[in-house]
Amino acid sequence: MSQNPLVLFMPSGRRGRFPVGTPVLDAARELGVYVESVCGGRGICGRCQVEVAEGQFAKHGITSSNDHISAFGPKEQRYAEKRDLKPGRRLSCSATVQGDLVIDVPADAQVNTQIVRKAADTKVFPRNPALNMCYVELEEPDMHKPLGDLDRLFAALRAEWGFGELSADPHLLPQVQAILRQGQWAVTAAVHQPDTEGPATLVALYPGLKNEAYGIACDIGSTTIALHLVSLLSGLTIASAGASNPQIRFGEDLMSRVSYVMMNPDGREGMTEAVREAINSLIGEVAETAGIDRRDILDAVFVGNPIMHHLFLGIDPTELGGAPFALAVSGAVAMPARANGLDLNEGARLYMLPCIAGHVGADAAAATLAEGPHRSDDIMLLVDVGTNAEIVLGNKDHVVAASSPTGPAFEGAEISSGQRAANGAIERVRIDPVTLEPRFKVIGIDVWSDEPGFAEKAETVGVTGICGSGIIEVVAEMFLARIASEDGVIDGALAAKSPRIIEDGRTFSYVLHEGKQTITVTQNDIRAIQLAKAALYAGIKLLMDRMGLTTVDRIGFAGAFGSFIDPKYAMVLGLIPDCDLENVKAVGNAAGTGARMALINRDYRREIERTVRRIEKVETALEAKFQDHFVAAMAMPNKEDEFPRLAKAVSLPPRKPRPANDAGDGTAPRRRRGGRRGRG
Amino acid sequence: MSQNPLVLFMPSGRRGRFPVGTPVLDAARELGVYVESVCGGRGICGRCQVEVAEGQFAKHGITSSNDHISAFGPKEQRYAEKRDLKPGRRLSCSATVQGDLVIDVPADAQVNTQIVRKAADTKVFPRNPALNMCYVELEEPDMHKPLGDLDRLFAALRAEWGFGELSADPHLLPQVQAILRQGQWAVTAAVHQPDTEGPATLVALYPGLKNEAYGIACDIGSTTIALHLVSLLSGLTIASAGASNPQIRFGEDLMSRVSYVMMNPDGREGMTEAVREAINSLIGEVAETAGIDRRDILDAVFVGNPIMHHLFLGIDPTELGGAPFALAVSGAVAMPARANGLDLNEGARLYMLPCIAGHVGADAAAATLAEGPHRSDDIMLLVDVGTNAEIVLGNKDHVVAASSPTGPAFEGAEISSGQRAANGAIERVRIDPVTLEPRFKVIGIDVWSDEPGFAEKAETVGVTGICGSGIIEVVAEMFLARIASEDGVIDGALAAKSPRIIEDGRTFSYVLHEGKQTITVTQNDIRAIQLAKAALYAGIKLLMDRMGLTTVDRIGFAGAFGSFIDPKYAMVLGLIPDCDLENVKAVGNAAGTGARMALINRDYRREIERTVRRIEKVETALEAKFQDHFVAAMAMPNKEDEFPRLAKAVSLPPRKPRPANDAGDGTAPRRRRGGRRGRG
Repeated sequence: MSQNPLVLFMPSGRRGRFPVGTPVLDAARELGVYVESVCGGRGICGRCQVEVAEGQFAKHGITSSNDHISAFGPKEQRYAEKRDLKPGRRLSCSATVQGDLVIDVPADAQVNTQIVRKAADTKVFPRNPALNMCYVELEEPDMHKPLGDLDRLFAALRAEWGFGELSADPHLLPQVQAILRQGQWAVTAAVHQPDTEGPATLVALYPGLKNEAYGIACDIGSTTIALHLVSLLSGLTIASAGASNPQIRFGEDLMSRVSYVMMNPDGREGMTEAVREAINSLIGEVAETAGIDRRDILDAVFVGNPIMHHLFLGIDPTELGGAPFALAVSGAVAMPARANGLDLNEGARLYMLPCIAGHVGADAAAATLAEGPHRSDDIMLLVDVGTNAEIVLGNKDHVVAASSPTGPAFEGAEISSGQRAANGAIERVRIDPVTLEPRFKVIGIDVWSDEPGFAEKAETVGVTGICGSGIIEVVAEMFLARIASEDGVIDGALAAKSPRIIEDGRTFSYVLHEGKQTITVTQNDIRAIQLAKAALYAGIKLLMDRMGLTTVDRIGFAGAFGSFIDPKYAMVLGLIPDCDLENVKAVGNAAGTGARMALINRDYRREIERTVRRIEKVETALEAKFQDHFVAAMAMPNKEDEFPRLAKAVSLPPRKPRPANDAGDGTAPRRRRGGRRGRG
Repeated sequence: MSQNPLVLFMPSGRRGRFPVGTPVLDAARELGVYVESVCGGRGICGRCQVEVAEGQFAKHGITSSNDHISAFGPKEQRYAEKRDLKPGRRLSCSATVQGDLVIDVPADAQVNTQIVRKAADTKVFPRNPALNMCYVELEEPDMHKPLGDLDRLFAALRAEWGFGELSADPHLLPQVQAILRQGQWAVTAAVHQPDTEGPATLVALYPGLKNEAYGIACDIGSTTIALHLVSLLSGLTIASAGASNPQIRFGEDLMSRVSYVMMNPDGREGMTEAVREAINSLIGEVAETAGIDRRDILDAVFVGNPIMHHLFLGIDPTELGGAPFALAVSGAVAMPARANGLDLNEGARLYMLPCIAGHVGADAAAATLAEGPHRSDDIMLLVDVGTNAEIVLGNKDHVVAASSPTGPAFEGAEISSGQRAANGAIERVRIDPVTLEPRFKVIGIDVWSDEPGFAEKAETVGVTGICGSGIIEVVAEMFLARIASEDGVIDGALAAKSPRIIEDGRTFSYVLHEGKQTITVTQNDIRAIQLAKAALYAGIKLLMDRMGLTTVDRIGFAGAFGSFIDPKYAMVLGLIPDCDLENVKAVGNAAGTGARMALINRDYRREIERTVRRIEKVETALEAKFQDHFVAAMAMPNKEDEFPRLAKAVSLPPRKPRPANDAGDGTAPRRRRGGRRGRG
């Protein structure tokens, strides 16, 4: 055969033919397959490990074998003797193509044995970090060619690593000479290059081979700050930590923090300092957990809702407190991390994802990046429920986004027995449709309330209230048990049938638990949930209208609330539109995942920047139809929309008969309602 | 005629045809003629003033007339009424082409009446600053298109000013919203764009029209720091100030400062702080003189010799104290000015010209930029005499550079009666070749020593010593009067003829002045001057060798010493090679001029960066022939080189006859000398 051998890289699937003798690393680079290398092919960093997948790959027409790769050369031999090279692993800088090959690029070269805490989210993403470690050996100074030390370093980085325009972070200028001499003209340069082609900056410099570099990815929530420490060389998250957002002491929710800034001259400054301090302390925590020096952290990615985003950047969020909700900056922000008060390596860089709109922040952008509605063939709905729900809907052709003011009811506020998800909170509820008796599960107690041992445990843990997921379930179960009508009215006639239905002024309540504290669900509680879920659903419907959709293919629930909520009950209540239940998933901390992706791959930064620019923003407050959708969504699941796919899985109470003109022709009443609002 | 009118811009000479009705500013821009404009053609900043040159321009085939430009439009009318528009001046953004035109672009629009101190150097250079003031009117925030305020500002800057990639200095992020609202969506953006095409940074932002912006150009000399305040909008230097370099207290000359750093742990830090403090204080001085706010200074250019360059940047200069004289950084350095401790606008930028070699600094690069040997058709020699002479030689095809260790003799050190150029110093000397009687001029006394009134004035001023130019002249005059031989030996036989020749141990001295202090020129003084001038000449000769030259066309003497030295005597002594005397010029503070050029035109930065990269560096200490040239140059003017062009202007003593083998064949003795050194 005269053809060159075929090399296929997994998991990317990229393939190409290369002459016998081509180093596998060169083949990977030529195909755009990212394989880490710090030492630039000298066989000393061990970062470029690959494995040969042996066998017949009929689909690709390749028979791959370890006979088709070169035997251990001297560099590889030396590395294997001095370090720990797992059986089957090869250094792609040394091993050369000898025949057809299928090459596995493992997610982790495991060069340094670091503590790897299994986080909830261990997805592996392709790497192409903005920050690269580049080992070079320099020419010594030469009087005949009096190029400066830094200039010769740049020349070496250009020649060996293909950089174009290079400059140095100012703080390095006084250090370069000593580091070069300490390393005897061999150094590892930490080079920050935001775009694959483009100007690059030397941000740190180490004598000799520096075979590690870290980054942090941080999601600044209004309640919780979650921070991950990631190895930029393996892409693995090696430690995570979380803390309450200390801004809570200035205001529980977002708007009270904006008010605090408006009322207090130093308010903005105080909150900025508080959040930066908390982040610096979390950085210390993850560094200690992982046993690394925080000075080895060289890149940092942050996400957060617009108000968290602004306060972190030292920007007064007052404009976000009222229409037109003007963001100071919506595009991605990049700067030296020290300019934002972060205590990392002095040259470390900071990147914040773009915000989508005044109420749809960098966290929603990050969740979008993680879950990829913009990469999807089918229609995906991504919802992050909070006091402001952030909603993203679309597919690869078109993406729309909005926020909806759901208020704090889903978090247990405004609910008579509401509380945060903590020990003692009821989180799951079932109601027998015949007896109307409930059973429930309490956080901190591992059995249900009707199971043996519950009573004793409840003595110590307590049953203190209902958390967000509990309130969703109890209201949905009350509806399914027909205690509450589709309009949310508790049926007072049932008081005769069950002592759990009790009169409460002019309305009725449902007694969920009697103990030290009596926990009831009042008519007002149901109203609060109805208002919240109607706001969310109306927002979603506006986006569906904009897309011309009547149904969605997949739904992702982001955030902590989304992780605990049961999709079935969310749909019974009508928080979300009808969908096959198996296509409704909790997507965990998608914002944090998106931040990690942007940290380990600069292409993701460009991807989300492009995506956010083309996302169509819908301002719910400005849409005439919001009110109509809201009114219809006050009913459970909805006064106008059918839920046929939900009905297949759950026995829904029969719907109230609609007036003829409403059911037969949806146009007329809508027009009528619009007219009413116009006059109002 | 169907052809479009022809428009010619002066002084650039660029020309092109434009349709009737084209604004003159647009025509200028299309031809790449830089015309300032802050308001972007709204007729409110008045920066884009031009004048019509009337008349027949036969050379260009143009008849230009005020009838060929549009009459005052409303914008121009309004500006002329509200402001001071000089007769004949037009706003090029408003005035349109109506026929053939010759347009003068004046150096100064004189919009703000500022104190303009006539500096010694008032050369006018084409402007194209890295820092531009750009007035824009923004769209207000819109909920339907929730682009951030900063992002909309960038969009306006892109649309109206043609910028590409834009980012903001981090310190501005918290300020943008308030400034935009203060300016009611009309702001002036200070945008730093180092390259004409390329990424740009918003470094300052002002509400409404900000019609001024300043820069500083600073030459950090080892003895003196000279700083100029320049309007970036007119290009004029509006104030200058100078101060002693406070590092003098750590060491008089460069090498003693390097030693100080080597001996003292905090030495580098102390000297860096001292020079930055002095510069900040000079900035305050020029700002006060010009009546401007130092916060309106947005750009800064610095030059200095390598050791000054390093200390200013906080770099330890120890490596420059010995071979291989390794610069930490030789390329141009750009950074935020605050990163280098400068107290200017918070977003101000700093640029330092590149260094040429370990002993040939950014000051020599700046002098090169100002005097332009690299742009010259004929061969130019540029010399900056100091304790280290910096020498640049070449033409547009090839430029070479070197430094030569002349030592401090030319500054009056090592000379028995030497002193700094101050009151009481002898600066000019003539000796009667017949009587051997001298006459001289003293700094602070306006008559010569043989003129009436000298004696009285000398009573108060004193005659205290000889300064640099005086020592050059007296030694040259002693040679011309044949008191000293071409080898520099004072002829003791003349003691019999003149009481001014006195015995001094085993050698003789010449009594220049008898008074309170007797001022003599000793044999050692002459030796010191011979050593210094031989070093300089040998350096020049090496460069001439490298270029294959035996003669140069023009000589420029840079620096203070160069301004006071008489070229004739410099040539009689043999400091510089033979040249027509009218082509030997003092070029003043060429380094400062080069710094100003780089400040007002970014193209000059690229020009000198390119030039420095292609300058061939010659390390005098490594050249085998340096010693030969040095020995020959110990003679006055030179033992080997003829000075035919000098001989036409000055009656030189006849040369000593050369030994036959030396005169007839230059190769043999040179080879012999080389051999001797090889054994030594």
